[in-house]
Amino acid sequence: MITKYCFGTPFETEAVAMKLNSTTVTSSDLTKEDSKDVFSFPISIKSDHNFFLEYDMAKDDIVYGLGEANRGINKRGYQYISYCTDDPNHTENKFSLYGAHNFIIIDGDQCFGLFFDYPGKLTFDIGYSSYSKLRVVAEEANLYLYVISGASSYDIIKQFREMIGESYLPPLWAFGYQQSRWGYKTASDIRTVADEYQKHGIGLDAIYMDIDYMEQYKDFTVDEEKFPNFTEFVAEMKNRNIHLVPIIDAGVKIEDGYSVYEEGVANNYFCKREDGTDFIAGVWPGDTHFPDFFKKDAREWFGNKYQTLLEKGIDGFWNDMNEPAIFYSKEGLDEAYEEVKKMENKELYLSNIFHLKYLMDSLQNKEDDHKRFYHDVEGKKVRHDKVHNLYGYYMTRAAGEAFHNLNESKRILLFSRSSYIGMHRYGGIWTGDNHSWWSHLLLNIKMMPSLNMCGFLYSGADLGGFGGDVTRDLMLRWLAFGIFTPLMRNHSAIGTRNQECYEFESAEEFKHLIGIRYRLIPYLYSEFVKAVKKNDMLFRPLAFDYPNDPLSRHIEDQLMLGEGLMIAPVYTQNATGRYIYLPEDMLYLKFTKDSDFSMEVLTKGHHYIEVDLSEVPLFVKQNHILPLAKEAENTATLDRKNFTILCYLTKEASYEFYEDDGITLPANGTTNILTIDCPNAAQIVNSEFQFA
Amino acid sequence: MITKYCFGTPFETEAVAMKLNSTTVTSSDLTKEDSKDVFSFPISIKSDHNFFLEYDMAKDDIVYGLGEANRGINKRGYQYISYCTDDPNHTENKFSLYGAHNFIIIDGDQCFGLFFDYPGKLTFDIGYSSYSKLRVVAEEANLYLYVISGASSYDIIKQFREMIGESYLPPLWAFGYQQSRWGYKTASDIRTVADEYQKHGIGLDAIYMDIDYMEQYKDFTVDEEKFPNFTEFVAEMKNRNIHLVPIIDAGVKIEDGYSVYEEGVANNYFCKREDGTDFIAGVWPGDTHFPDFFKKDAREWFGNKYQTLLEKGIDGFWNDMNEPAIFYSKEGLDEAYEEVKKMENKELYLSNIFHLKYLMDSLQNKEDDHKRFYHDVEGKKVRHDKVHNLYGYYMTRAAGEAFHNLNESKRILLFSRSSYIGMHRYGGIWTGDNHSWWSHLLLNIKMMPSLNMCGFLYSGADLGGFGGDVTRDLMLRWLAFGIFTPLMRNHSAIGTRNQECYEFESAEEFKHLIGIRYRLIPYLYSEFVKAVKKNDMLFRPLAFDYPNDPLSRHIEDQLMLGEGLMIAPVYTQNATGRYIYLPEDMLYLKFTKDSDFSMEVLTKGHHYIEVDLSEVPLFVKQNHILPLAKEAENTATLDRKNFTILCYLTKEASYEFYEDDGITLPANGTTNILTIDCPNAAQIVNSEFQFA
Repeated sequence: MITKYCFGTPFETEAVAMKLNSTTVTSSDLTKEDSKDVFSFPISIKSDHNFFLEYDMAKDDIVYGLGEANRGINKRGYQYISYCTDDPNHTENKFSLYGAHNFIIIDGDQCFGLFFDYPGKLTFDIGYSSYSKLRVVAEEANLYLYVISGASSYDIIKQFREMIGESYLPPLWAFGYQQSRWGYKTASDIRTVADEYQKHGIGLDAIYMDIDYMEQYKDFTVDEEKFPNFTEFVAEMKNRNIHLVPIIDAGVKIEDGYSVYEEGVANNYFCKREDGTDFIAGVWPGDTHFPDFFKKDAREWFGNKYQTLLEKGIDGFWNDMNEPAIFYSKEGLDEAYEEVKKMENKELYLSNIFHLKYLMDSLQNKEDDHKRFYHDVEGKKVRHDKVHNLYGYYMTRAAGEAFHNLNESKRILLFSRSSYIGMHRYGGIWTGDNHSWWSHLLLNIKMMPSLNMCGFLYSGADLGGFGGDVTRDLMLRWLAFGIFTPLMRNHSAIGTRNQECYEFESAEEFKHLIGIRYRLIPYLYSEFVKAVKKNDMLFRPLAFDYPNDPLSRHIEDQLMLGEGLMIAPVYTQNATGRYIYLPEDMLYLKFTKDSDFSMEVLTKGHHYIEVDLSEVPLFVKQNHILPLAKEAENTATLDRKNFTILCYLTKEASYEFYEDDGITLPANGTTNILTIDCPNAAQIVNSEFQFA
Repeated sequence: MITKYCFGTPFETEAVAMKLNSTTVTSSDLTKEDSKDVFSFPISIKSDHNFFLEYDMAKDDIVYGLGEANRGINKRGYQYISYCTDDPNHTENKFSLYGAHNFIIIDGDQCFGLFFDYPGKLTFDIGYSSYSKLRVVAEEANLYLYVISGASSYDIIKQFREMIGESYLPPLWAFGYQQSRWGYKTASDIRTVADEYQKHGIGLDAIYMDIDYMEQYKDFTVDEEKFPNFTEFVAEMKNRNIHLVPIIDAGVKIEDGYSVYEEGVANNYFCKREDGTDFIAGVWPGDTHFPDFFKKDAREWFGNKYQTLLEKGIDGFWNDMNEPAIFYSKEGLDEAYEEVKKMENKELYLSNIFHLKYLMDSLQNKEDDHKRFYHDVEGKKVRHDKVHNLYGYYMTRAAGEAFHNLNESKRILLFSRSSYIGMHRYGGIWTGDNHSWWSHLLLNIKMMPSLNMCGFLYSGADLGGFGGDVTRDLMLRWLAFGIFTPLMRNHSAIGTRNQECYEFESAEEFKHLIGIRYRLIPYLYSEFVKAVKKNDMLFRPLAFDYPNDPLSRHIEDQLMLGEGLMIAPVYTQNATGRYIYLPEDMLYLKFTKDSDFSMEVLTKGHHYIEVDLSEVPLFVKQNHILPLAKEAENTATLDRKNFTILCYLTKEASYEFYEDDGITLPANGTTNILTIDCPNAAQIVNSEFQFA
């Protein structure tokens, strides 16, 4: 059951798709004694100028949720600040990442979900200041609070997901392996990537175009020197079954004669300063204006701009820098420079040298800058910081709405760096600029179920790590996890070691790993579409499937995947294997280097498994079926009719297999039920099967 | 067997204590074919202008060593640069930390050790560029290479340790729990710490005095306003069995009238620029000069300065900022400021804004600055960068030599931030400015055996983490490991959350943990002194004790401790236990919250153990004895005669127990052999014992 409470005058974020009546809560309802009665659960709220919620957590309570956030599946023991932030250096002490997903579930004797629909800065202190206290604090007491009760966390999540609306569905090809790098500058660079992948027989469905494809980083332009005859180039690649995916940045370059800039200025489509002038932010193109995606007409205008690329044959995009990231503001720069000048004739003491450093360092993503520009929300001026977390959502919504209007029956790949709940209906996310760190591989693993809880099904991390130099072993281990994430993209930053699969010794080991991905795609796609339609999760904590198993409750490095699988990636350098816990007897499938696999039944309990580099362990729940396709070099040539059926059978098993053409909306494909009868004795099934 | 090779004209670092003749190797000895024969092992060396060593590692080779370095016990798969660096933000991608310990052991079918006695920058590429290649590169081919062969890595390490000389031995009280914080400013602050610890009954042997005790950060001064009657204060604390440990920084403040500065200038004790003027570096006091610890008379002079504090009753020091850390050099500052001024009237484009940021960021610990000053080595001018890694060593040696000359029979606590092999004879190290990160707890665990390999026995990390805000659970888990490290110090930075044990909820859980430390001190001390005398390791990888057990080879999160123990700390947030591997049946001792412990025998193999916060798991090898003392509030009142003897006995067991007065040098205490006879059947022994 969901109850919606209204505090003050909330901003209508459109995070929630379902229409629900709300109960208005005033501060007089919230004397400390009363407040606990108001919400069905013993949460105490103070709502005056600020909003302050407190809940006494029991020792063993787990707190799930928060989507794209730091640390573990269990968010207990740290602080998280919902404030979309461009922080590529997200070590474990950081409070904010690229998205803001304000949904948590308290899982213990009391079990309930809380969604704070509040687009400004929101702090979740989940046992950080005091281990037993959950505290959620907002500067302004203007928000909707949704309290969700249910039989379990999993049940609560499904209710929440139903409430926020169906998740975005990408085309089938977006489940193929994808290669990206900030550093591909020309058509020739991209052709080389395609050639090398195909030469090595390594599967590939898409190559990304980072900022260098544009003319001076101007949105919706293509540099004709670097990409002559772009339309032909897109077609050439598509003939090779490779999709090109260009980046779109939030900031629009200020340049006379550049139509996007000129139209934006002429029609008041850009964010404005308090005095009504267009706000200037420095990003990749230098000085830019930010489109005001809060204005319906600006959103339509910007969304329709994507058509300039759709017309050239493009069918996928990634929206970047939309927290929005700001390298500097005009005001911030002037202030800093004034201070620098003041020091000119002074002796430089330690403290002012530190101050100088601070001035320069703090130019970038300075929160003060968020108070320097405004959005026009149906004629009302709203200061950016108060709705900061919606900016990336609304940018992506602009594109999603335009795609729908242009051709409602075709799926376009779309994902974003910044996000807020609600955006999951329009696109996916990647988890931003990570590092070539083993700890970021582990973070990637732990983040997937949390993202699913908040509606983000199409997601994944920059495999191998964006910043820094990846090592071959990290790349292999990361890919061995990445083969399970819907978005499987290898992406890296300019200046770092090249990390395309063919850049490493023994590329055949990479080919083999990506081959496994293609063998799994029919299953992953089937499970993905079902999860979209049923508001279900693709990645789940073990405890969701085994609620009565106490050991499952604390496992964070194994995940349930779709209805029948469990994964247990290796994420430690120089490890030759790892420990796993099986909540029941399972079929242990190990994909070996020779593109074959071994199978054995492992019993419920703890095991140590040996997993060599480029091997992949996978577990199939008993009486669940994994349909495994043949290897393919892309989704276009993937055989989705003929499968090897793998199952550990102790009684009857069935699998609901969904398929469609992979491109049409709505997704009304066919569902085949595959059934295996009850055996005489427990057995491993390994048989060929052809779907009609 | 150790063979010493000489390349070019090496700098005489005095890392090695043993006199060995060397074989001179010239580049003509090193044609690619020949070089492999020269060194008994198939290493190939090119030694021309540069030095380049290469070795083909087998797939399963492990590389041990490098002391204070990033990542795992097995250094395979990454790059490490020996170049002492002040980097508090040492994420897993960093190449250099505070120390430079150029000893590695290749452990595989071929097993040998390599020590590169080279005080400049040295790069170890251990399968980073190519997984199978070990490459060691120095800019200049002037060095001693020691090649050590032996029966095993452990054997090679013992030979190496014998060669570099006996490790530093601190006083017994330095094994007590110690509290530090950058932020204790006055005698009253320190008295509060002492009061709170004693009020809560939490054991404590020392409180540290960070930079604020000095007058304007001037070495060997005590601010009389903050510390009136300092000598009396030291005595007051010592009466409470608490030792005060002041910090000494490398840089000497430039200030007329300050005797250390004036003496240094008058006698040419400071590092000089090429033109002969004293080099100026900005550190905590602002502009400073660096003592030239490479000059014998300057070293004597600086070492004797410690007496100003010894005379006041001080008996312990920590040497800091001696990489040396440099916030700015006069030259660097001028250059940066010139560039800033040049931009004044220009429009600021993105690239020059990034350049401005870079200018400011790169002021600190700029490698260029290391080329701006010189050492006087017996009359010869040596540019700092060429001998950079010796600076911290020689500073600490200055103190150690002075202590020896002042009173050769008394142990003084001494440890350093920066170090080079050789310094281990004069003092210990702490592992520098870490963070309140779970990953730094794990790094601490993995680093201990590597440090021991290189002679650094008295060492430990800043428990709880120096930078950032610790959470209660991290503090508890870190202390639960810290109770095993010889240096057990809780230290944190100004501006972070207070992390003294009494600052947290339920201080009794902290009291209980530190109580376990005191119960272990007689064993730890006994093992420590034996390790010093026998050139042995206190912390060992499991494989060293179980060379025939293949699973032990890859375990990095369990350590052998002293002759009979194995530890397995929990280092994951929200974990309620962990996996462990036992290479043989062992006694599993779990210290529980109630200051009691449980005991059971666990069989060889894999286990999952439940370990609640503030519980401590400990394993005793069969037929080995753990003598456990009673809890005490400091080492002065610790009963080192009466023990509880714990053992899992299947045949005869004996323990060699060393004790002495804890303060006299040389350490010629008594060794008692405690023996338990062969039992009729396997049994757990839990009996009281009194040493004579």
